[in-house]
Amino acid sequence: MQTYKMTIQYEGTRYKGWQRLKTTDMTIQSKIEQVLTRYFDAPIEISGSGRTDAGVHAQAQVAHFAAPHAVDLKACIEALNRYLPEDIVVRHLEAVSDQFHARFHAVSKVYTYRLWTAPYPPVFERHYVVPIQGPPPNIDKMKQASKLFLGTHDFKAYSTDKTKKSTVRTLTDIAFIQTEQELQIVFTGEGFLYNMVRILVGTLLEIGTGQRTMESIEQVFKSGKRELAGETAPAKGLILTHVHYENI
Amino acid sequence: MQTYKMTIQYEGTRYKGWQRLKTTDMTIQSKIEQVLTRYFDAPIEISGSGRTDAGVHAQAQVAHFAAPHAVDLKACIEALNRYLPEDIVVRHLEAVSDQFHARFHAVSKVYTYRLWTAPYPPVFERHYVVPIQGPPPNIDKMKQASKLFLGTHDFKAYSTDKTKKSTVRTLTDIAFIQTEQELQIVFTGEGFLYNMVRILVGTLLEIGTGQRTMESIEQVFKSGKRELAGETAPAKGLILTHVHYENI
Repeated sequence: MQTYKMTIQYEGTRYKGWQRLKTTDMTIQSKIEQVLTRYFDAPIEISGSGRTDAGVHAQAQVAHFAAPHAVDLKACIEALNRYLPEDIVVRHLEAVSDQFHARFHAVSKVYTYRLWTAPYPPVFERHYVVPIQGPPPNIDKMKQASKLFLGTHDFKAYSTDKTKKSTVRTLTDIAFIQTEQELQIVFTGEGFLYNMVRILVGTLLEIGTGQRTMESIEQVFKSGKRELAGETAPAKGLILTHVHYENI
Repeated sequence: MQTYKMTIQYEGTRYKGWQRLKTTDMTIQSKIEQVLTRYFDAPIEISGSGRTDAGVHAQAQVAHFAAPHAVDLKACIEALNRYLPEDIVVRHLEAVSDQFHARFHAVSKVYTYRLWTAPYPPVFERHYVVPIQGPPPNIDKMKQASKLFLGTHDFKAYSTDKTKKSTVRTLTDIAFIQTEQELQIVFTGEGFLYNMVRILVGTLLEIGTGQRTMESIEQVFKSGKRELAGETAPAKGLILTHVHYENI
């Protein structure tokens, strides 16, 4: 047996999200498990750093799996990429300790949300960016508001997580990157709840357009009520950019 | 009557190229003419700076057309983009003199060819880049060879142009841009023959991989024989980047 850590890039457009489902094989996890099972001629299950929703993309999702035997890394990557659909690619593969766990050992994650700000619609980036409708938002206000999300909070109201476990999470950074055509909002945190980034983006946009006050952010935190937070921004603008691990 | 100059961005993947055909409406020109005809409620024909082949993209193709009356530019762009397929976008529209001609007045064009050099296949860029197969080419050799194409030559052998007109063209610059994952070759010239950029890229790649000698370039020029030049590189890596006009 040998455990492998795998870094995967995918376009989520066609898929029902990361996680394997009983009803369809159109999930990222299923597609990867199918080619691994074929490659090793033995049933392989992979375990991701976390789920991504239907339509969400990944620059570098991480997963691990236990293989029945060691392989040549380069040959294995090439074989997997030959059989994977062209919107899923294995970028990196490495042998790791059998103690490694893609979810438990992730110390932080980076998600990027891409908003399209140019006065014409995107062509080449159309599956990866969400055009801002209406007048341009006040980005200074959005930056100021984003600071209220930093640190450790109970993000219950800013997620649709149905878990009975803790909804307390720590956000360590929210960066704004402006280019000629885009506004990217980059979230770094120790962990994220279901739909959390998309609801934070929706809430920040409402601040930027003046539909929502800066003060409401704290009130929504206190209420714990999802319906008081902003709209859930569309899935296609979201990309899991990086998963960070300590050396273990 | 008012003449308009239009700048258009498109992904060529689904189309049979720029030029209107009798057999299908899946051409860029047809799609744009359809929405213009609908918008003006009168038959409109557009005239592009030149054709792009099936599968070739454009960052900024230019065309002109005569409209029956003047329009509000912003409202017109918005209406056109609402009805165009999402892989064709009008970026810019401006009223010009009725003397303006998108093809005759173009003084130079820039085409970019994108080669993917990373050791794993592309995901987000997969419709716009061509992965290099086999061992990495010698880029210094390619740069050196590219200088032999600069200036004014009869490019007959480096095109599949069936025209009886002159096949003499002037290339003013060939630039190489290397990023972590790509090699872009950027061609600037006064005009290009049918398939010329793609054949130049194919020929340069054969130089880079040692399949072809530097000396052959001049011999192929002299021969005028297409079959002695390199392979035609795939359409999807090619993008019409810019069309330059003098102020007229």
